[in-house]
Amino acid sequence: METMNTSKHISGQFDTELENIRNQVLTMGGLVEQQLRDALLAIEENDIESAKQVRKNDRQVNQFDLDIDRQCIQIIAKRQPAASDLRLMVAINKTTADLERIGDVAKKIAKVAMEGEYDKKQLQLIASLDSLGRHVCDMLHDVLDAFARMDVDAALKVHKEDKRVDREYEGILREMVTYMMEDSRSIPKVLEVMWAVRSLERIGDRCQNISEYIVYCVKGKDIRHAPSSEIDELLK
Amino acid sequence: METMNTSKHISGQFDTELENIRNQVLTMGGLVEQQLRDALLAIEENDIESAKQVRKNDRQVNQFDLDIDRQCIQIIAKRQPAASDLRLMVAINKTTADLERIGDVAKKIAKVAMEGEYDKKQLQLIASLDSLGRHVCDMLHDVLDAFARMDVDAALKVHKEDKRVDREYEGILREMVTYMMEDSRSIPKVLEVMWAVRSLERIGDRCQNISEYIVYCVKGKDIRHAPSSEIDELLK
Repeated sequence: METMNTSKHISGQFDTELENIRNQVLTMGGLVEQQLRDALLAIEENDIESAKQVRKNDRQVNQFDLDIDRQCIQIIAKRQPAASDLRLMVAINKTTADLERIGDVAKKIAKVAMEGEYDKKQLQLIASLDSLGRHVCDMLHDVLDAFARMDVDAALKVHKEDKRVDREYEGILREMVTYMMEDSRSIPKVLEVMWAVRSLERIGDRCQNISEYIVYCVKGKDIRHAPSSEIDELLK
Repeated sequence: METMNTSKHISGQFDTELENIRNQVLTMGGLVEQQLRDALLAIEENDIESAKQVRKNDRQVNQFDLDIDRQCIQIIAKRQPAASDLRLMVAINKTTADLERIGDVAKKIAKVAMEGEYDKKQLQLIASLDSLGRHVCDMLHDVLDAFARMDVDAALKVHKEDKRVDREYEGILREMVTYMMEDSRSIPKVLEVMWAVRSLERIGDRCQNISEYIVYCVKGKDIRHAPSSEIDELLK
């Protein structure tokens, strides 16, 4: 298993700072994952109060984004890190940006939950949204786990998972188009769900981004934009 | 006019490096703007070859993203910049990420162009897409101009413009929903255009992001996530 040794500085204080900021990213990630799960549950149980809470909590996610970014800059300015430490700062900076956007999706799903009142057929679409939602929640969980351990193999596993999310998404989309064509009055409501499904699919892309930052951090190699068939070769 | 003095180092070599990387961001931005304009023109003129070229050129955009990012890290590691220089590196790092995503939208619009064959009513929707497209192209142009001059006032002007883009987008969306409800056979094709319109609206958000990085770079203040009503107060 390829991971990164993260405790190796002469200055114990610097180690503490790095450990601290990594923990904050994981806490932010945990919050975002919870937000997403709560938003999906709010739809399933038609729980408006819970959906409102998700929308409210998004402020905390944004605050994490600002705080972690500021600390990254402070560490770079004060410690002048090189090599893997500098890569870690860059990776954290990019990861929080993606986590913040995933938080925005949770907020959007919560909005769909607040619209409430779906008929029987529409509830089937909501069930598909829920299934895709759980899929990307698990992906987010796994990539945060890979981040915690700076585990390249686990990160690459998440990277590959995105293809499955894309396939599931395409299936739901086809289902929705058929439904809209059969019952045109449903179009506005189905579109509402469709935007949410689209945003969930984008979470898969963001988890893929985070897995790329992990690889960059540990191996020093930037695999963004590389075709997936070439990634193994790049990492040799 | 509030701008940043960017030529002030004892090391002339460092000045050259900063100037060089700023120029690359502007070149990348110019390429992305051109890609977007070409993609919109390809739809308007039903020019499949030109659309194909846009899709091909996206590789160049991605390469800029990788190259500029790598140089940013090298400069941070080698020059250990502080204060405004470090903020410039962070701002560049974030700006290229947004430019790369705008490049992806151009690619997506080019795909719509390649689908071709729209009926008369659908061409009206394409005209709306084109109008929104030109609006965000101008916004991108203006924010790149603000970046070139590190001009906070110009950046804030772009920041405010996003509201207009949002309103234009909402109008087009309503138009599309009505059209789909009137003619359900058109749904798959209209959805294709709708995704593109949605992506254009997101370009407005990304230009807004870039304007926030400019403010951060010049003023050292992070206005992300701040309600627009509070921004003036934050910058006092």
